[in-house]
Amino acid sequence: MAKIQKLLVANRGEIALRIMRTAREMGIRTVAIYSEADRQALHVRYADEAVCVGPPPSSESYLRADAIIEACRQTGADAIHPGYGFLSENAGFARAVRNAGLIFVGPSPESIEVMGSKLAAKAAVASYNIPMVPGTPEAITDRDDARKTAAQIGYPILIKASAGGGGKGMRIVENDAEFDEGMNRAVSEATSAFGDGSVFIEKYVTSPRHVEIQVLGDQHGNIIHLFERECSVQRRHQKVVEEAPSSVLTPEIRAEMGRCAVEVARACGYYGAGTVEFIVDDQLNFYFLEMNTRLQVEHPVTEQITGIDLVKQMIYIAEGKPLEIKQEDLKINGHAIEIRVYAEDPANNFLPDVGTLETYVRPQGNGVRVDDGFEQGMAIPIYYDPMIAKLVTTGATRAEAIEKMIRAIDEYRITGVQTTLPFCRFVMQHDAFRSGQFDTHFVNHYFTPDKLTPETSLEETQLAGVLAAWLFQNRQQKTAPEVVAPEPKRSQWKERRLG
Amino acid sequence: MAKIQKLLVANRGEIALRIMRTAREMGIRTVAIYSEADRQALHVRYADEAVCVGPPPSSESYLRADAIIEACRQTGADAIHPGYGFLSENAGFARAVRNAGLIFVGPSPESIEVMGSKLAAKAAVASYNIPMVPGTPEAITDRDDARKTAAQIGYPILIKASAGGGGKGMRIVENDAEFDEGMNRAVSEATSAFGDGSVFIEKYVTSPRHVEIQVLGDQHGNIIHLFERECSVQRRHQKVVEEAPSSVLTPEIRAEMGRCAVEVARACGYYGAGTVEFIVDDQLNFYFLEMNTRLQVEHPVTEQITGIDLVKQMIYIAEGKPLEIKQEDLKINGHAIEIRVYAEDPANNFLPDVGTLETYVRPQGNGVRVDDGFEQGMAIPIYYDPMIAKLVTTGATRAEAIEKMIRAIDEYRITGVQTTLPFCRFVMQHDAFRSGQFDTHFVNHYFTPDKLTPETSLEETQLAGVLAAWLFQNRQQKTAPEVVAPEPKRSQWKERRLG
Repeated sequence: MAKIQKLLVANRGEIALRIMRTAREMGIRTVAIYSEADRQALHVRYADEAVCVGPPPSSESYLRADAIIEACRQTGADAIHPGYGFLSENAGFARAVRNAGLIFVGPSPESIEVMGSKLAAKAAVASYNIPMVPGTPEAITDRDDARKTAAQIGYPILIKASAGGGGKGMRIVENDAEFDEGMNRAVSEATSAFGDGSVFIEKYVTSPRHVEIQVLGDQHGNIIHLFERECSVQRRHQKVVEEAPSSVLTPEIRAEMGRCAVEVARACGYYGAGTVEFIVDDQLNFYFLEMNTRLQVEHPVTEQITGIDLVKQMIYIAEGKPLEIKQEDLKINGHAIEIRVYAEDPANNFLPDVGTLETYVRPQGNGVRVDDGFEQGMAIPIYYDPMIAKLVTTGATRAEAIEKMIRAIDEYRITGVQTTLPFCRFVMQHDAFRSGQFDTHFVNHYFTPDKLTPETSLEETQLAGVLAAWLFQNRQQKTAPEVVAPEPKRSQWKERRLG
Repeated sequence: MAKIQKLLVANRGEIALRIMRTAREMGIRTVAIYSEADRQALHVRYADEAVCVGPPPSSESYLRADAIIEACRQTGADAIHPGYGFLSENAGFARAVRNAGLIFVGPSPESIEVMGSKLAAKAAVASYNIPMVPGTPEAITDRDDARKTAAQIGYPILIKASAGGGGKGMRIVENDAEFDEGMNRAVSEATSAFGDGSVFIEKYVTSPRHVEIQVLGDQHGNIIHLFERECSVQRRHQKVVEEAPSSVLTPEIRAEMGRCAVEVARACGYYGAGTVEFIVDDQLNFYFLEMNTRLQVEHPVTEQITGIDLVKQMIYIAEGKPLEIKQEDLKINGHAIEIRVYAEDPANNFLPDVGTLETYVRPQGNGVRVDDGFEQGMAIPIYYDPMIAKLVTTGATRAEAIEKMIRAIDEYRITGVQTTLPFCRFVMQHDAFRSGQFDTHFVNHYFTPDKLTPETSLEETQLAGVLAAWLFQNRQQKTAPEVVAPEPKRSQWKERRLG
């Protein structure tokens, strides 16, 4: 068992900082890497040492496996945590790290490889009792057989190009009468898009929810799950609001999904922290989608409801320690919600809106956690994901976590860029979200930019405040207390309270 | 049952902000009061409305019951939360609030009165089975009887002036042979100090720990306890480090202390949030000291381990709602530690060191909560308690909470005033604290200013860092990554890491 002495974090921004904080708590020295665009970044200043690995874009720096391993040699770092994104799910990198005699804080290259391929993943879990989206296992060769399969599965079904991706060569077929036309079109689209007309059939899940299970496995075969995260609120097919637990799972379904997730991990000899993703339909049937072999962006909600520091566990596991947490000791305490604060304009199709954080004041207090990598005055580089922060609130109940989130959003003061904060406030106040009855179509179904609280109502509120104060002042006698009209600073503060 | 619509917070600083945050989460509008010295304070800017109630000192503003009730009239506030300190345990104020037709978010004036008097409190709990420090119940009239009582109690004993306070007229007597001399001195001191020579006897608790139980009672007779807080680390007889749970209580003693605390509350018909204080000796015998009829400074550690928002519960109770939390549903989750960050100089007998917060950057991340009332550039007024912030960390275990606290202390950047941060770091690293084996004499026993990490070692560390970086740079080839020497900003960041 090797005790890690110095950890290089092969990432940037909030996740680099978040990992280094835990490393420091564990008495492990830290090394940051950075691109020339990140020279002034917080993660660079936070680390004990920092190494520039090249210019932007990422292919010249954060993705340069050779430079990163060389940085370990130079600084004497004995381990690498890849964070998420960049090289975190690159089996070649994990192997190169291992071959360099360093510890990779993550799963084995073999596990990454298996789960990185949909076919290999399916094959690996085939002998376990894992529900998959019903469909034809391989490309269709006989149309009549396929038609029978479709009838067995039940309509609506999806015809997908074997070589597909990004929605191309994909047709929804609502009933048997539409089957032939759907097939013809799918094959034709597949042929023209990929030069390969082979297609397969899958059940079309209506009203799908994205629910994922966090797992932790050690190098001794112990695997546990830390319950689920619900990630159905997405924009541009990317998560923007996540929570734990899900508002719809029953204890029985939770236990069953947990069992499946542990078996998926076992099927690929998994160790480290991983996430098994499922799609859940409106009848609470769930189907295995894929496994993410890294720490997820949204891991804090799991930490909040379990009290487990996932990065600490990852480090222990990488050192070879056996898991000390038993499945039966784990319990869900309260409810946590995370919103991703992106420098994006929700009124303009969530397009990135990079710039300088002219004002940047974080919310605080009971039940509020902010994971970020910025300070006031810093610029958000155009080269990277425009996430400013993850804002996490925790309450005794889901309703309390939502109220804390609205309060925290109102307290967040960001000027200089547009952010997803007003959009997230819209989500928190929407009946569908509050009731827990929503799916991955939430944004398409409910959101239009005019739903964002208009700025004008703000001015009205402020005007009313000033008027009220003026009235009070004129009612005052000399001995009576003085009621203040909002001062400039106070009004500025109020600006962030949208409504 | 009255739903509170607008809450006036009759306090300042961190606790005013903390209360307003919860009020806002509950959809309750907020009114701040402030003295002329606090015009720019955060709690004033955070509130929906703010009323100046007079100049400093507090007797002219924060303690002016009439002006505060008038401020409610002017703003239409229908309830007052007193916070801690100031008028929070003033039965006359609570009564005046009630008589003005307003809701007092706290206990009844009658409960405050009973628990505000040591004699009345003792009388109230007499019929319950509450352990008290053994001693003579009243002033000694017969010396021989007293001597027999002392022998029964067992030495050492304490002879205390009935009219005493502040340690005056108090003598420790180690054995029977010293009894007469001790009595003579105590009576003589009591006579000269208070003009009243009457004294009583109490067992002298060696190695005392200060452990208190949080209770919540509603207006329907339901009372629960939320476990204990350990507050033994004190300087100048004031708490500076608090934690929950205590590192020494067994589940049995915890349950028994909880039962006693609930009965103390029942004895005075208590509703609201209250704290029952006990002294615990080195054999884990515990004795009732007094009940604090308000929210405590250190309430966050209880919130962290139970997930209960105490201010929210106080508001519900004041509205007349029955408690929804059942004793059997409560469970301790993890461990929380709070340190009080005072503008004080630990190297100079903890004397207040007011001034301007030239740098003020809070720590962040997993398991860190900061409750404060300041921002960078603000001055700490000389008129009030010099507490800057409460820094709270929460971990799965006590060891984890301690490591998170050290990390958070190192991240806190405060310049412009001396603070208790280096002292708290000393506590977190001290074997006695880490082992859990300490008492209220911790500071006297272990702390001297030379124990604070000297600044010189810092410079050495930095020099070593620069040297190492220089060596790496000279080893570099053109394609190799660049290792940076610490930039000015980075060294500044490092300045806060004491060692």
